[in-house]
Amino acid sequence: MSGALMSAEMDEQPAVLGRLVDRFEGHAAQVRAIVPDRLAGVAFLARGSSDNAAVYGRYLCELAAGRPAGLVAPSLLTLYDARVDYDGYLVVALSQSGATPEIVTVCQRLGAAGARTVAVVNDAESSLAEAVQAVIPIEAGEERAVPATKTVTGELLALAAVASALGPVPFDRAALAALPAEVGAVLADPVQPRALAESLAGVERLFVVARGLLYAAALEAALKVKETARIFAEGMSVADFRHGPIAAVDEHVPVVAFDHPGPAQDDVRDLVATLEARGVPVGDLALPAAVPEALAPIPAVVRAQQLALALTLARGLDPDAPAGISKVTETH
Amino acid sequence: MSGALMSAEMDEQPAVLGRLVDRFEGHAAQVRAIVPDRLAGVAFLARGSSDNAAVYGRYLCELAAGRPAGLVAPSLLTLYDARVDYDGYLVVALSQSGATPEIVTVCQRLGAAGARTVAVVNDAESSLAEAVQAVIPIEAGEERAVPATKTVTGELLALAAVASALGPVPFDRAALAALPAEVGAVLADPVQPRALAESLAGVERLFVVARGLLYAAALEAALKVKETARIFAEGMSVADFRHGPIAAVDEHVPVVAFDHPGPAQDDVRDLVATLEARGVPVGDLALPAAVPEALAPIPAVVRAQQLALALTLARGLDPDAPAGISKVTETH
Repeated sequence: MSGALMSAEMDEQPAVLGRLVDRFEGHAAQVRAIVPDRLAGVAFLARGSSDNAAVYGRYLCELAAGRPAGLVAPSLLTLYDARVDYDGYLVVALSQSGATPEIVTVCQRLGAAGARTVAVVNDAESSLAEAVQAVIPIEAGEERAVPATKTVTGELLALAAVASALGPVPFDRAALAALPAEVGAVLADPVQPRALAESLAGVERLFVVARGLLYAAALEAALKVKETARIFAEGMSVADFRHGPIAAVDEHVPVVAFDHPGPAQDDVRDLVATLEARGVPVGDLALPAAVPEALAPIPAVVRAQQLALALTLARGLDPDAPAGISKVTETH
Repeated sequence: MSGALMSAEMDEQPAVLGRLVDRFEGHAAQVRAIVPDRLAGVAFLARGSSDNAAVYGRYLCELAAGRPAGLVAPSLLTLYDARVDYDGYLVVALSQSGATPEIVTVCQRLGAAGARTVAVVNDAESSLAEAVQAVIPIEAGEERAVPATKTVTGELLALAAVASALGPVPFDRAALAALPAEVGAVLADPVQPRALAESLAGVERLFVVARGLLYAAALEAALKVKETARIFAEGMSVADFRHGPIAAVDEHVPVVAFDHPGPAQDDVRDLVATLEARGVPVGDLALPAAVPEALAPIPAVVRAQQLALALTLARGLDPDAPAGISKVTETH
């Protein structure tokens, strides 16, 4: 019931990220070597936490490549047996285990349909790694706690390498080099997420909002809180939140917002002001100011892990092995 | 507080759909005329309820065209000023009002970036209709209740016409012709959704699940319930539900499932059995068996409207004008 496993794996993140920073240019070069001459688009293939990482990749790769990016709907292949042509596409498959049968099967099908394929996996010996043309191994070591932590931030950084293979990215080498230490500083300072967890321990419903590049972190924060603390949390873009769900919040339904310098900041702050004026409790998860917005989803996900861990313990639950889910999910 | 407006607009759906069925081939021909010779992909642009319709379009168009389809991330254009190349793409913009500034702006930008553009709008005189190369007007008449109903099912049928312009679709002309009467029969029989609403009136949290082509209807059902009945509902694919959120449900968090004959049915039933074995209350919204799965999202959304209306009344709220949202949302 201590969350010792989850906590220890969270603490490994600066080291995992540091090794990925060292290999960053090499991984970008690997991907660059297989990108189609005339890129039609980029498609991400994932489930669960990896799906949230894919949302980050989807934004960053479209920004870098200037060509549309999106998410694969696996059921089109597995259930509907769609006859698709993925010629000109780069497919990026993500799976922490590299063993989710659905992801492996769909990736093979898309490769056979003409896509160039790259896998982001923790284990370079996995079935998914064998099914693709380029592999970015996270090499985070075994993840024993059920909630994925170090593999998720590793996936995010791996996707930043994929994006940098496709075109200019909005962060520089110095920011990349500083990232592991910035994440270390976030881990060393759990005061704010713990205080937020204390104020949220009694709630049953929660929204997490962000916009643009940080939207993926809001999705991941909600998923972590949902699967560990069993709070009904939903992640949403600030813009989608205004189109309906804003009606469902009041003083009993708090909103947690990611607010960081960048093009999306004004929009987030505007929503926060509207909510506060209506008496909705709004919590904030502070991010290191020096990290550029394009890399900020990584410390943001770490903040989300801290919040989920503290909330879960405050609710008397076990973060390391939440009821009802297992590590490798057998969807097909 | 009667929901008279919403209810009257729901009842107009067979007539609105009937007119769209009559114009179906004409609209498909309009779209066919602007599809790029070598289609790179299809991208949908929408917010709110229209975004849920777009998810339906995304599945059906990829099935029909055999080329990847996905959803546009508007903030890449409006906030990040991404320099994108949409050459070879068909962009389908949806907006009930045709007046959401964000959608109009992004559609213009994508057209300037090389996309062929089509708009699905209620009002053919709107700004969005003027910004595109082909227009499919829903012509549902003015929608006065805040929750969108007849315009949403109209959008779904319009997207079926877009898909049929791109390739073979999994429904025939006879099924299309029968659809308005099938929807009329659903509207004439509100017993089951009312009974379900009665059993759910006291809950604060709810999941709506489906898979494949009906996934969009689960998203729309959750949005309607959230914005009218103020219940914290989340729509989710059966596969994603197994990757985490399944941990958050127990006897206090019911799940509503769309179960209909088709390739996704076994997967839905398998999840329902798992949930029932754990004591999770599972509700069902029955759909007319004769409607092929590819058109079933239309009666499914009508069932969702019936459920949302009954739930909202049962909770003493006003379905016609939910607190906190307005008809045209100004996102940018």
